[in-house]
Amino acid sequence: MASLTTEQHPPDDRPPTIRDVARLAQVSLGTASKALNGSGKLRAETRLRVQTVASELGFRPNEWALSLHRRRTFTIGLISTDSFGRFSIPVLAGIEHALKEANISVFLCNAADDPELERRHLEALLAKRVDGIIITSRRTDPRPPIAADRTRVPVVYAYAQTSHQHSWQILPDDQSGGKLATEHLIQTGRQRIVHVTGPDSFLAVRQRAEGFRQAMRAARLPLPARSVLMGAWSENWGHVAVAKLLRVRARFDAVFCGSDQIARGCADALREAGISVPNQVAIVGYDNWEIIAAATRPPLTTVDMNLQELGGQAGKILIGLIDGQKPAETILVPPRLIVRASCGSFSRATGDTDKR
Amino acid sequence: MASLTTEQHPPDDRPPTIRDVARLAQVSLGTASKALNGSGKLRAETRLRVQTVASELGFRPNEWALSLHRRRTFTIGLISTDSFGRFSIPVLAGIEHALKEANISVFLCNAADDPELERRHLEALLAKRVDGIIITSRRTDPRPPIAADRTRVPVVYAYAQTSHQHSWQILPDDQSGGKLATEHLIQTGRQRIVHVTGPDSFLAVRQRAEGFRQAMRAARLPLPARSVLMGAWSENWGHVAVAKLLRVRARFDAVFCGSDQIARGCADALREAGISVPNQVAIVGYDNWEIIAAATRPPLTTVDMNLQELGGQAGKILIGLIDGQKPAETILVPPRLIVRASCGSFSRATGDTDKR
Repeated sequence: MASLTTEQHPPDDRPPTIRDVARLAQVSLGTASKALNGSGKLRAETRLRVQTVASELGFRPNEWALSLHRRRTFTIGLISTDSFGRFSIPVLAGIEHALKEANISVFLCNAADDPELERRHLEALLAKRVDGIIITSRRTDPRPPIAADRTRVPVVYAYAQTSHQHSWQILPDDQSGGKLATEHLIQTGRQRIVHVTGPDSFLAVRQRAEGFRQAMRAARLPLPARSVLMGAWSENWGHVAVAKLLRVRARFDAVFCGSDQIARGCADALREAGISVPNQVAIVGYDNWEIIAAATRPPLTTVDMNLQELGGQAGKILIGLIDGQKPAETILVPPRLIVRASCGSFSRATGDTDKR
Repeated sequence: MASLTTEQHPPDDRPPTIRDVARLAQVSLGTASKALNGSGKLRAETRLRVQTVASELGFRPNEWALSLHRRRTFTIGLISTDSFGRFSIPVLAGIEHALKEANISVFLCNAADDPELERRHLEALLAKRVDGIIITSRRTDPRPPIAADRTRVPVVYAYAQTSHQHSWQILPDDQSGGKLATEHLIQTGRQRIVHVTGPDSFLAVRQRAEGFRQAMRAARLPLPARSVLMGAWSENWGHVAVAKLLRVRARFDAVFCGSDQIARGCADALREAGISVPNQVAIVGYDNWEIIAAATRPPLTTVDMNLQELGGQAGKILIGLIDGQKPAETILVPPRLIVRASCGSFSRATGDTDKR
């Protein structure tokens, strides 16, 4: 077996090549290549010698050259416009979890709503010959497709969609989420429910409100004009909305909120007005953003969009496309309800959240 | 100029190669390569023809092959163990901002505290021939160095460090942060200050507490044994700590908190006990995590670790290393104080935060 001395090392300023490996293992270039690719017929001893030399040298095969044979680089690119990471980090975790067994690495690039940056990241990922691209966002409204007409790699949108006819997109089912929250309130005995949510310009806001109305109509419950209040994505809007409702002496026994932040503002405002949550008014939030939902007093019952599951599905669909399958173009991921204490379903809760 | 017909396109299932470009532009392979690399002597007309054909075909040069010439791929890898993205997303944004002009793309991989996953991501990034690697974390305590002894690319730790002798690490100056917060409280007239913070096992906790003690000693203020309370990184711990202080009838006019979450718990607990913030007790938080700090009532004065700046410095140091420079091995990034209303410095504040 070849034993390396300092003199035999390639100069320190360049990575070792397959030529260095072949020379030190005293085999031809073709033999070294076969030994490292695991292809061709070789004596086990020769293969082992080449591999040992390669390992000692720290040789890394040119993955692109390898991929010419097997047509795959086992990497995919994720381009995100969610600068806070609120939505993209769980989606990333879901993709990684789903692709763990396929031994695929995911590279995330942050495009921060900057089309020029997005184009540059796309070029960089394609130059690295990724097998596919996933686009994720901080909102689900249709966006322009990425300039990928010449990418020749599949593209999947996750927590994002385009208006483009043929594109693959995995989205949270926000209408079902609105229904789910409202039905839970109805099932636990509430009848006068208001919906306090984010700005009308968000598709998610309109879909959740539609789910809310469907559930109310299905239960033949009153739906006055003021039952949907749209405002900002903020705690403060929760305070303001409750103040508005109290000012007009609205009668309500539950608030379904479009985000956990809004729900937290509502919960605090109600408590400070001397109204007991959940005894007098129940609250359901949206997002299951644990750092907010679990710290609210009482801890929030809330809708979880299953973003990890969504990321996982996006990863699986991308793999299907890479393998030449034709999966369905749009998938809606159903949400689930996380029950804590804000609807009165639990009698006690600590409100502790020790995670950081 | 070559005009392309459908028949001339390479088959749809493979990317076009430089051979396709050369054939369609009716030049030799060497000429095509020179035209696309911008190297060698060519007639302007020939260069333009080759570039037009390449563009129409959607040809992408094999970036790795190009990098053999210029020795750079203009990509760096960022490996993060911060699954929530709280710390890694601002660090990523800072790196990207600093490297924008250098036209470098950053690929983030999520290793989620799993050494096996970290090793796999490292391999994938090295196989892509990234120019360098940045490691980031969710805490600043020393961690094992990545298995990069054979990477032959520079490695920088950002919001992370190793016990390894020669490594480059950019860290927040947490001791200065503790001093900064405490000095602000002293300057605004507070004298009996307690420090409510996270678990002793975090280096950041010990450093911030040391900064607190230094500032108190420098001002010759009392430092009884109970003046540092360590607990969980949670809002609930803020509530519990205030309850403890009130139970033993501690006299205090300010609380310096180790995180904005703890500070929020303290602020709520004090208000509910009928103690006015900031009139009776001032509060300073840590992190400037806007979604918490700005939504607290009153909005929190807090220490900002300047994580974007930290990421930017990491990027610049990595570029220096790639270019063969020898920058200093450890850099501490000074924090800054963000003044809101919780120390009484401002008379009014809205507490609104419309960001999502």
